[in-house]
Amino acid sequence: MDTAVLSSWNDGPVKRAILDFVALVTDPGDSYVAPAERVACFDNDGTLCVEKPLPPQLDFIFGAWKDEIRADPSLATKQPYKGLVEGDADFFAGVSRQDPEVIQVVEEAIARTWNGVTPAEFEADVRAWVATKRDSRFHRPTTELVYQPMRELFDLLRANESRVFICSGGGRDFMRVFAQGLWGMNMENVIGSAPDVEYVDGRIVRTDRVYGAMALGPGKPAHIFARTGQLPLLAGGNADIDMEMLESARFALLIDHDDSEREYAYTAGAEQALARAPGAGWAVVSMKDDWNQIFT
Amino acid sequence: MDTAVLSSWNDGPVKRAILDFVALVTDPGDSYVAPAERVACFDNDGTLCVEKPLPPQLDFIFGAWKDEIRADPSLATKQPYKGLVEGDADFFAGVSRQDPEVIQVVEEAIARTWNGVTPAEFEADVRAWVATKRDSRFHRPTTELVYQPMRELFDLLRANESRVFICSGGGRDFMRVFAQGLWGMNMENVIGSAPDVEYVDGRIVRTDRVYGAMALGPGKPAHIFARTGQLPLLAGGNADIDMEMLESARFALLIDHDDSEREYAYTAGAEQALARAPGAGWAVVSMKDDWNQIFT
Repeated sequence: MDTAVLSSWNDGPVKRAILDFVALVTDPGDSYVAPAERVACFDNDGTLCVEKPLPPQLDFIFGAWKDEIRADPSLATKQPYKGLVEGDADFFAGVSRQDPEVIQVVEEAIARTWNGVTPAEFEADVRAWVATKRDSRFHRPTTELVYQPMRELFDLLRANESRVFICSGGGRDFMRVFAQGLWGMNMENVIGSAPDVEYVDGRIVRTDRVYGAMALGPGKPAHIFARTGQLPLLAGGNADIDMEMLESARFALLIDHDDSEREYAYTAGAEQALARAPGAGWAVVSMKDDWNQIFT
Repeated sequence: MDTAVLSSWNDGPVKRAILDFVALVTDPGDSYVAPAERVACFDNDGTLCVEKPLPPQLDFIFGAWKDEIRADPSLATKQPYKGLVEGDADFFAGVSRQDPEVIQVVEEAIARTWNGVTPAEFEADVRAWVATKRDSRFHRPTTELVYQPMRELFDLLRANESRVFICSGGGRDFMRVFAQGLWGMNMENVIGSAPDVEYVDGRIVRTDRVYGAMALGPGKPAHIFARTGQLPLLAGGNADIDMEMLESARFALLIDHDDSEREYAYTAGAEQALARAPGAGWAVVSMKDDWNQIFT
């Protein structure tokens, strides 16, 4: 085994399963998969980067909503602003639970906040947020709290003619700001929830409509098909909202956050996925046991 | 000049403009454009392949509708089936004119025809059509009636770290069937009009809703932004419905069908684009004068 490959991964069944699968589909034989069909898709929050205490994008959105509430305090009486003011984590967990009412009210509020905004203006908002935001536990910019083992997995896949995509329930245009710098990824390889856009007077502007569906649950494979014309050969996720993406792939990784010392230990929002993994043949990645390094 | 580059293009102002632009954005200097931002987008019908007497996909769709009319003759009294039965070319030209009523009735009929169909079933329909279809003038499969000079342009762009995309008003999933074989292009680089899809019981199925807008007129740059996160550095088209895509690019090619001997001579549907080209700085490609070879 080339020691430079997946060097932040400990030797063990998961690293072995990854290397075996890559060899299986690239070596000549019955299981060979043509490069055109080598599409790998990964969730973002909790799969590629820290998502506690809040997924980075949610922190960004909450900041914008707090500004809106300051400007118009009457907002605080209605959702989702009420949930934010009251610190109602259970209300926002409704997005992960795919509660349609919660998703709709959150979607509509996000759409109102950036309706009519150009991509350049949106990017400026994101960059202003990341420039000042420091993680409350690690005291580092959120852009430094990405998982080194997953970067190495991307390297391995690309070296084997796979294209690597991010497919997150979070905002496509938010993640695109960091795609090149964090993941060496072109923006067209970022899939996520997004507004429909229009081309008006020579400019792109965001509308208040959603482009297709939210990229949650069954919305993930739907968006992956729309983008790539196929379902993934390999997929990685960490939560119940990733289950359909994982089951749609030939090989699936499920990240288990079991490392309270170096990161976090939690199963909330991943109970169904963890229960289903053994029967589905998904490789469960123990951050504690399988990764000898978490951050770059 | 490397004679292997653009060898089907005659020396002249258009070939020179293409080579100069590629050098401008790839050579170090004030006009340098990073590889991540080198996105080139091309219309399909009439830009990359013959679109007379009918764009290939329209012929495919008409074949399916004729089957439906045979099964239910009452369809012949309503649009768009009536237009097909009566050979009403002006009715269907309403799509190119971006007549919203025509687009809606055509869209809805396409959606009905393949609603609930899986990608594999759709691909089988497309392959069955292409296997038997022979062009009425050239007596060749439609897949052989693609423009060799444009293949060479793709080669040039890729050699300079551009990604090449197709962005057609025609059906995304139709073009994807041929992307790898005809253009050496992965399916994720094909942009076009498409149905929204859903993931149900482990399978992707087509719905009767449109994904975003039709990729016509302003819908082209909107779809390009949604796919790539940016507007194109370079674009190529041949018709009025390509104008917004061309104006959104830094460098634009407009293919002029002026070669009745080797292909066709027509300006219908491109009158506005041809009138606008000189003022907009678009390079007008004369098929007659700029291309020494049309087909591969």
